Amino acid sequence: MSLDDVLARIDSNLDTATSHLMNLLRIQSISTDPAYKAECDKAADWLVADLKSIGVDAAKRPTPGHPMVVGHIGDDDGDLPHVLFYGHYDVQPVDPLNLWTSPPFEPKLEETENGTVIRGRGASDDKGQLMTFVEACRAWKAVHGTLPCRITFFFEGEEESGSPSLIPFMEENAAELKADIALICDTSMVSRGVPSIASQLRGMLKDEFTIIGPRIDLHSGHYGGPGLNPLRELSRIVDSFYDQDTGRVAVEGFYEGVHEVPADQLRQWQNSGFNESDYLNSVGYSQAHGERAYSTLEQQWSRPTLEVNGLWGGYNGAGSKTVIPSEAHCKITCRLVGDMDPDVLREKIRAHVGAQLSPDAKVVWDQDLEGSPASVMSITRPEFEAARGALSDEWEREAVFCGMGGSIPIAGFFKSVLGMDAMLVGFANDDDAIHSPNEKYDLKSFHKGIRSWARILDALTK
Amino acid sequence: MSLDDVLARIDSNLDTATSHLMNLLRIQSISTDPAYKAECDKAADWLVADLKSIGVDAAKRPTPGHPMVVGHIGDDDGDLPHVLFYGHYDVQPVDPLNLWTSPPFEPKLEETENGTVIRGRGASDDKGQLMTFVEACRAWKAVHGTLPCRITFFFEGEEESGSPSLIPFMEENAAELKADIALICDTSMVSRGVPSIASQLRGMLKDEFTIIGPRIDLHSGHYGGPGLNPLRELSRIVDSFYDQDTGRVAVEGFYEGVHEVPADQLRQWQNSGFNESDYLNSVGYSQAHGERAYSTLEQQWSRPTLEVNGLWGGYNGAGSKTVIPSEAHCKITCRLVGDMDPDVLREKIRAHVGAQLSPDAKVVWDQDLEGSPASVMSITRPEFEAARGALSDEWEREAVFCGMGGSIPIAGFFKSVLGMDAMLVGFANDDDAIHSPNEKYDLKSFHKGIRSWARILDALTK
Repeated sequence: MSLDDVLARIDSNLDTATSHLMNLLRIQSISTDPAYKAECDKAADWLVADLKSIGVDAAKRPTPGHPMVVGHIGDDDGDLPHVLFYGHYDVQPVDPLNLWTSPPFEPKLEETENGTVIRGRGASDDKGQLMTFVEACRAWKAVHGTLPCRITFFFEGEEESGSPSLIPFMEENAAELKADIALICDTSMVSRGVPSIASQLRGMLKDEFTIIGPRIDLHSGHYGGPGLNPLRELSRIVDSFYDQDTGRVAVEGFYEGVHEVPADQLRQWQNSGFNESDYLNSVGYSQAHGERAYSTLEQQWSRPTLEVNGLWGGYNGAGSKTVIPSEAHCKITCRLVGDMDPDVLREKIRAHVGAQLSPDAKVVWDQDLEGSPASVMSITRPEFEAARGALSDEWEREAVFCGMGGSIPIAGFFKSVLGMDAMLVGFANDDDAIHSPNEKYDLKSFHKGIRSWARILDALTK
Repeated sequence: MSLDDVLARIDSNLDTATSHLMNLLRIQSISTDPAYKAECDKAADWLVADLKSIGVDAAKRPTPGHPMVVGHIGDDDGDLPHVLFYGHYDVQPVDPLNLWTSPPFEPKLEETENGTVIRGRGASDDKGQLMTFVEACRAWKAVHGTLPCRITFFFEGEEESGSPSLIPFMEENAAELKADIALICDTSMVSRGVPSIASQLRGMLKDEFTIIGPRIDLHSGHYGGPGLNPLRELSRIVDSFYDQDTGRVAVEGFYEGVHEVPADQLRQWQNSGFNESDYLNSVGYSQAHGERAYSTLEQQWSRPTLEVNGLWGGYNGAGSKTVIPSEAHCKITCRLVGDMDPDVLREKIRAHVGAQLSPDAKVVWDQDLEGSPASVMSITRPEFEAARGALSDEWEREAVFCGMGGSIPIAGFFKSVLGMDAMLVGFANDDDAIHSPNEKYDLKSFHKGIRSWARILDALTK
């Protein structure tokens, strides 16, 4: 029996696997809405039963929120790796429902210009991706009667609602969950058909501040002129965050801990098939607007940002109100790279704002702090090169180590809580509309995703 | 019979006049809220009956909104003036109700550190002020059996909700309403105890714009960096409105039509008893923040402004959302002085914003335009000097011609629609809390206000 037999089994079983995924997609496991609690539970039960059907010792594990699913199969063998596979069974809400072309929880196959897709909430994020790994195991088991190494399955039901139970659960079950490496299937390919391993994720810093001017809202007929207006003050402060000429963030020391991307990695990125024009044009941009000295891909993957996500103050109803408001509000997030320290950066930003304030203006910062540093994967581990080879074979295109602009905290948690490296391999496409109406997963992603995991398991256990 | 008899009658009748005002204050004539339509009607009926009781031929006059009250008394006498008196019987809403120390529509007398006050919604704005004139007429009638000249009474019930029926009503009844001069009692004294005639009011320009960046809201993990953020764009544009060093508005041509205040008028303002520190400190300012080259009083009365009254865009709920929004919004108003033309200025501001836009950013302006130029009263007319003398006699303090930072469109409408000059004499104080909880009118303002109008009527008809 060989890998080819497993791949052949995957091919012949694809229709069954697709129908099976649709059963999972029919479960309305929206984690953020308490009305769907029973549905989340049902999805966990479904997964436990499914894992059991391939011989995994699986169980639903309670948390203060939605349950985890944990399963084990195989024994330790000194020569073979013990891998943990992570995915999440919860999905995003479906609003606005009227924009869906078919009911979100009645999945179906649809022909599109890019081939057949599986349409439905969770098809891509993350039920379809999660099942690529499970189906690879099922095929392996069917062919070999066993799995190639010890595998721990770890499925979460709160990823779309902030993962409140995740770290406590990992801490309480550290010994049980610890493996040699974590495999995560929740990311996309850098461009259609280009197999990708995410080698770095940006970190995140969140903050919020209020500029306070006069003691009370004022009438602009009485105080318009001599009165300090917090909206104007806030605008000046936000503008001061940036150097308009270079596009750089102008907060002193902002770039401390940021490293230039090594030339060979940059070359790989440049050859990854990423189409800058398509990427920008698709949302209405004719050009990139960030740091002039860096390409769009670098800006997105390896450069830090300071973004304003919300600004508000004064009157925003119909018509006009001649008010000089007492307060103006601002929400910001930073994307962190390299060795940027979120706590140090927070203080730099706060110092910058403080230094901009006019006399009589005060600033109040939110106390509910949050920050996580960037994650850089250990791509020199042999598993990464093994997986890259396996992916290249399957997709007949050299797999790339790509950056990711977003922040996936789970990868960092495996490292910080369990001391494990993580490898992120995903088969989603940018047009999958995750978190949006009409989510889909390419049938090709599902099919070749399953085959990819079979090849990766084979490569890791050779 | 002499003026002294009228003043004595006013003094002896003060308690009755105060009780009478309280009856009007009990009527909940909130014009902006349709739930109070019947109450507005009731206030109009009350005034018609009251005017009739002093011999005025008064009637409630329908409009598409709340009714006007119009009354006439006396015949034309070539030598004597025909005056029109304007006031409004509608009041502001009372929210937030929980901040009132007593029910807003249960008026009462209260002792304060500044003397007795009449507490209740509308006490100062404008029922109490309106009744100063009516009570002066009542006393005059009681003493003389007639009034000193032809008088037209004109009371509006929509002043606090934008006066939608005012101009059409004035146009349709132009011949009936035309008089030699309009007297308006809806303003305050420049400082406590300093009788004041408003000689100039600032005009108003309102506008609103939306900055549009990407076609849809974007995820800051994907587009943070290369993506143009409309919130940042808007902040830069708002900041560009101002020259931080001089405090001047930096829109090209903004100050066209602005004139310096003549030296003698400036001297009068400086001697008007206005206390800059008190004025600023009372709302939490330690200094003035506008144009460095001008005093607070000049900034408020004779200098134009560009104020941001509302800014909003992105996420403003609890927590954080990593969004780069598609749109950012801004409401602005300008206060106009001298010969500034609102239509010309609007184009200058729009051109300024257009010139600031980054590539890929668009601006959309509100189509619901509004603007009115500044009003400068004809203080060389003999009525102004006569009134100033009368006020100085009553308050034993030289009355001043003061500017006003606010915009009272009615004064301009008398000029533009009816070709009449208007004279604004008011007895409110800055601490009257108009439009706010715990509105009050000093009993002294009411008492000496009535006496002031008796003296002014006497002076105008000598």
